[in-house]
Amino acid sequence: MISKKMQGFVANSSAIRAMFEEGKKMAAVYGADHVYDFSLGNPNVPAPDAVRDAIVDIVTGEDPVLVHGYMNNSGYEDVRTALADHLNGLYGTSYGAENLVMTVGAAGGLNVILKTLLNPGDEVVTITPYFGEYRSYAGNFDGVLVEAASVPGTFMPDLADLRAKITDRTRALILNSPNNPTGVVYPEAVLREVADLLLEKQKEYGTEIYIISDEPYREIAYDGVEIPWIPSVYPNTVVGSSFSKTLSLPGERIGYLLIPSEVDGFADIIAAANVATRILGYVNAPSLMQRVAARCCAEKTNVGYYDRNRKLLYESLKEYGYECVRPEGAFYLWMKSPVEDEREFVAKAKDEEQILIVPGRSFGCKGWVRIAYCVAYETIENALPGFKRIAEKYGL
Amino acid sequence: MISKKMQGFVANSSAIRAMFEEGKKMAAVYGADHVYDFSLGNPNVPAPDAVRDAIVDIVTGEDPVLVHGYMNNSGYEDVRTALADHLNGLYGTSYGAENLVMTVGAAGGLNVILKTLLNPGDEVVTITPYFGEYRSYAGNFDGVLVEAASVPGTFMPDLADLRAKITDRTRALILNSPNNPTGVVYPEAVLREVADLLLEKQKEYGTEIYIISDEPYREIAYDGVEIPWIPSVYPNTVVGSSFSKTLSLPGERIGYLLIPSEVDGFADIIAAANVATRILGYVNAPSLMQRVAARCCAEKTNVGYYDRNRKLLYESLKEYGYECVRPEGAFYLWMKSPVEDEREFVAKAKDEEQILIVPGRSFGCKGWVRIAYCVAYETIENALPGFKRIAEKYGL
Repeated sequence: MISKKMQGFVANSSAIRAMFEEGKKMAAVYGADHVYDFSLGNPNVPAPDAVRDAIVDIVTGEDPVLVHGYMNNSGYEDVRTALADHLNGLYGTSYGAENLVMTVGAAGGLNVILKTLLNPGDEVVTITPYFGEYRSYAGNFDGVLVEAASVPGTFMPDLADLRAKITDRTRALILNSPNNPTGVVYPEAVLREVADLLLEKQKEYGTEIYIISDEPYREIAYDGVEIPWIPSVYPNTVVGSSFSKTLSLPGERIGYLLIPSEVDGFADIIAAANVATRILGYVNAPSLMQRVAARCCAEKTNVGYYDRNRKLLYESLKEYGYECVRPEGAFYLWMKSPVEDEREFVAKAKDEEQILIVPGRSFGCKGWVRIAYCVAYETIENALPGFKRIAEKYGL
Repeated sequence: MISKKMQGFVANSSAIRAMFEEGKKMAAVYGADHVYDFSLGNPNVPAPDAVRDAIVDIVTGEDPVLVHGYMNNSGYEDVRTALADHLNGLYGTSYGAENLVMTVGAAGGLNVILKTLLNPGDEVVTITPYFGEYRSYAGNFDGVLVEAASVPGTFMPDLADLRAKITDRTRALILNSPNNPTGVVYPEAVLREVADLLLEKQKEYGTEIYIISDEPYREIAYDGVEIPWIPSVYPNTVVGSSFSKTLSLPGERIGYLLIPSEVDGFADIIAAANVATRILGYVNAPSLMQRVAARCCAEKTNVGYYDRNRKLLYESLKEYGYECVRPEGAFYLWMKSPVEDEREFVAKAKDEEQILIVPGRSFGCKGWVRIAYCVAYETIENALPGFKRIAEKYGL
């Protein structure tokens, strides 16, 4: 009864979401305190109080016809101006309202820019491991997701493999730093090498290759690590971001695309993105949350909370003998499975210890697992004995 | 620089939205009080106070991690239960949470169900005149929109033409009652004829043909007209609705799909719709507004406000000699252009009288115009002399 394409999508549906749903069922059986759900990037840190105050202030003080009404499909002009000013303050840029399209989360933004850019068969390259939904998003527009390898151990882009994967059909490279699932941050030197390669390939093929920088985790970084501003490194960069993680509003679906005026074909792209937002059925980003974002974009989430989780989890798992990547940003820990088929490890963790983690193949990388540590500190404390017992069973 | 498909979409972009943007520019030139913008279905009636109270209550009283967090892609279970109960109270049905998918407005819902159902080349029939975005929505999934005629004057479905337009590739019929742009309501007798035809054609072709009932205007109806519940007439009906008009929240993008258990292939369709919601990049309907919708779904908008507008506009335009359809629902007046090419009339209204209306060809019906009267009463009062002058110029 359903379309062939959807049959494929349903069959390969997100293991992350399946685990999240499983966790809710298990909580009903074992009690919520006895299920350790590290499946989903659903922040346990509440939104800043300023968000609540802004909501109350807006709905009691502003005109409801404006606050809840239609606006330009790209978003309220005053909201886009406020966000542009905020970005300009951070990065020394000179963006204006005309460079922003408010979107239904970063995922909505990625779909808008991919619909804008992709002809059927066009290739979208990304670096493994990667957020598995990129494959669906490219597929929505009959694009082809192409995986380029990362360097084992560091999970930085493997430049040689990236070079091999870029063809005359390459339309975009999706970069995600801080990275989901590895937690690594690409330093400027690495980004410059990537940029040089893309410039060379653009010239060789006479094409435009866009970087789509998916960066909802930009503001969650540790130990003072610098997160380079990619449009300053490679002009043909479109940035997709959201307030899902930085303001703990993932369910609200509020994000944006930044399309700098320097991008090749800027005028066409921004006009098409505006139309794409509408005809994809989003119409516009949720209106009240747009106005909240404008007021709260300078607010900070509680990075210290995630950092405390990170340290406890990373240090403990290392101590138990697991091989882990030390996270520099985001709130994911990327860990090598103690057994070749990581699905066996994931099943054991779930069945024996009620610990929910996600197999690496969901991110195009077998043999590893992702542990989302945006949970309560106590969840980590209480799950650690289980991780330890499993390590012992595997003889780590 | 942009995809071929988007080039087409941009070139044929919404005249409604173009007029809305034009109106904002004209307001800056002439002053907002001297531009009469009837272009967009953007309610001028504020959201009920209960919406504001619910928002304040939720953000000050409920756990922000729950209120703003991820939930099942189909929406919060308690919200879906509340909406199902509400519908059951109205229609004597027995829906449950499992029959509902919360969506990013009705437009998001239409895209979810079309993505779920359509293979490339599948046909989606609708009755002219129709909301022009249906063409884009079907095209998003390589479906083909097929126009079936309505009966001149009444704008009811022309059964003979509908019969001719249904083929073995017909996957769905989109019905929209109360109708945008005509304001007509399909009575039960008409719907039964449509249902009988579809049942016959399903049997003839051995296919399933779904009615997709796009009904955001259901609760805006006048003179006690009855709006039949289509799933009770034709079991293979999926309902798409939203709170955009009934709670004056168009910018918030909060709606739902109702997929009754009686629908052919229910289990596959509901599972696929859940996945489609995620991979289209919506992920889920905005979370706070889901919770507001659950609390406020029984609230009524100020139908009397629209009714007062309707009467003034309809009676006056008739008096000036225009041929109009008397609206029974929604907040649109469908009027015959006094000159064959309605674009000439639309341009004259804009240039000479600062009156913004939408040409009928945007709805697949040349020679007519749509006037959205969800505006301030004074806007109508102040625009009427202009409509009168134009009528006189055309010798009505």
